[in-house]
Amino acid sequence: MVDRQTARHAKRLRPQEAPISADELTLKHVQAAAERLDGVAHRTPLITSATLDAECGATIMLKPESFQRSGSFKFRGAYNRLSQLTEAERTAGVVAYSSGNHGAAVALAARLLGIPAVIVVPATGSALKLAAIAGYGAQLRPYDPASERREEVAAEIAAERSMTIIRPFDDYAVMAGQGTVGLELAGQAGPLDFVLAPVGGGGLIAGVATAVKELQPGAAVIGVEPEDAGDTSESLRAGQRVSIGEPATIADGLRASQPGELTFPINARLLDDVVTVPEPAIIEAMRFCFTRLKIVIEPSGAVTLAALRAGLVPVAGRVGVVLSGGNVDPADFAALLAS
Amino acid sequence: MVDRQTARHAKRLRPQEAPISADELTLKHVQAAAERLDGVAHRTPLITSATLDAECGATIMLKPESFQRSGSFKFRGAYNRLSQLTEAERTAGVVAYSSGNHGAAVALAARLLGIPAVIVVPATGSALKLAAIAGYGAQLRPYDPASERREEVAAEIAAERSMTIIRPFDDYAVMAGQGTVGLELAGQAGPLDFVLAPVGGGGLIAGVATAVKELQPGAAVIGVEPEDAGDTSESLRAGQRVSIGEPATIADGLRASQPGELTFPINARLLDDVVTVPEPAIIEAMRFCFTRLKIVIEPSGAVTLAALRAGLVPVAGRVGVVLSGGNVDPADFAALLAS
Repeated sequence: MVDRQTARHAKRLRPQEAPISADELTLKHVQAAAERLDGVAHRTPLITSATLDAECGATIMLKPESFQRSGSFKFRGAYNRLSQLTEAERTAGVVAYSSGNHGAAVALAARLLGIPAVIVVPATGSALKLAAIAGYGAQLRPYDPASERREEVAAEIAAERSMTIIRPFDDYAVMAGQGTVGLELAGQAGPLDFVLAPVGGGGLIAGVATAVKELQPGAAVIGVEPEDAGDTSESLRAGQRVSIGEPATIADGLRASQPGELTFPINARLLDDVVTVPEPAIIEAMRFCFTRLKIVIEPSGAVTLAALRAGLVPVAGRVGVVLSGGNVDPADFAALLAS
Repeated sequence: MVDRQTARHAKRLRPQEAPISADELTLKHVQAAAERLDGVAHRTPLITSATLDAECGATIMLKPESFQRSGSFKFRGAYNRLSQLTEAERTAGVVAYSSGNHGAAVALAARLLGIPAVIVVPATGSALKLAAIAGYGAQLRPYDPASERREEVAAEIAAERSMTIIRPFDDYAVMAGQGTVGLELAGQAGPLDFVLAPVGGGGLIAGVATAVKELQPGAAVIGVEPEDAGDTSESLRAGQRVSIGEPATIADGLRASQPGELTFPINARLLDDVVTVPEPAIIEAMRFCFTRLKIVIEPSGAVTLAALRAGLVPVAGRVGVVLSGGNVDPADFAALLAS
């Protein structure tokens, strides 16, 4: 396991990328993020299902961040980060690399705050997702995944235009924003025995665990990854960040090949477990959301429900479950369910 | 237009089918239904969308009855009706004819109240919908639409087993239950300028209009039908109930070929207008719900949003919009969106 020393070490190695607001991520930072997001982000509801409770033998409370602005929890972190920029930084603008939810979230947060934004996107990306980003008024900078690295393209733009890079997860202000999902959940659900959240780079669950473990120390916080993108569970077993091959999971938001430098130490300290789910279970969870709950959940958002319904987490009592987003093209959705 | 005399006349013609609880449908009956449904039916939320408001130039508040138990508003009417049966009627049980939402709603309400239920369903019906009805524990009685009339099959079963027929709309207790949608909407949304609801047999909008027009007399109540199933708008123009050909609209819950005997006089008195929408607008509304709102709405449930987005209702101010249900097979949904 990795302790706080490692976290400090990781930060010392990259001073130019230092987070803007904190040396550490605590409940206080999550609460401050919640104040910034008040009246801006949606307070997503909790959804319950008698069928699901009966299936799982527990009281399941789903928190659908699909209903969040921009269609995923990512808006919380992006807005919390952008709203803390200095005047000079706001004027120069921001750059992010993402074909998906982080890109849309940064684009929307930037528009709301009047900040110019460039989003570096794969030229091969989903037309629907790219249209959403452009629709929020951000400038798209396509790159060729075969010949360019998106981090480098973003770094060049940042250097040329003095723009601030907004990382998708390895940033304490982003994590604090994502943590407001856990803060809300703990408040809405009452006492919890378990909290499940998806794990990609680890920013969402780091924030959620920070809030939940301080507010409800008795709640076990469990991460869920696709089997094919089990970098965090492997890293936890190894006691250090390990890199896996390029994941090909349908859960496109969770295709991290290694945990974040800043997120991993937090998750190593706070998480009770990280489990992995097979692809068919993810599809079945999406189908359950559609046919029983009447909500649209993208593959990455459905991994928690998939783990639950496949019996991969021995839950009991009161269980909070984060469904992290709902951005999926209807045609892709249909193809997955027909597969 | 048809006045109260006609309503009384219609009722006088069919004394054996008289409603159980009221000579008239008033706010009081809807409020009594709300008390019966309290803690049993879900109080569905209101959903808003900045995109939709900008598109329509009004404040749109959507009430998604897709989140209601059994997946549509029909549960409200069915439960209100069944909960008022006498002990003898409960013991003998109920029979309903429906391949869809009314069947599922009666089946669920019957299960909750411990009442035996037979649902007369087309042998050619959707496997998913029939499975849902059977899943609630009702007995299925398939009929052959080519050679049998479902009303007659139900009447035979009712006579043989002394069962009570639960009509889908032409029943004041059913209408009073559906009216709780309007009662909730009026309470949740505050002052409203417009209320839109789908029109099939007319039970939902009769209940909704009854509640809304007493609570907020200034609100215009507008019905929406598919172009292909415009029996109520034609009947209103004619000043009497007229019958149209067998509708083939994708909105399978709205395929009424003529308005109800009991619903029509109420709707003729209370509705400000009924508009019709073309099929492609319904599909586009379903797509908007999926991609922007992240909710699953069936064709019948989407007609109101379709009318709004197609500019068929000149709304302004504060607008309440009933999305009546979300029971649609994922494969059918995909086929519609791809069409």
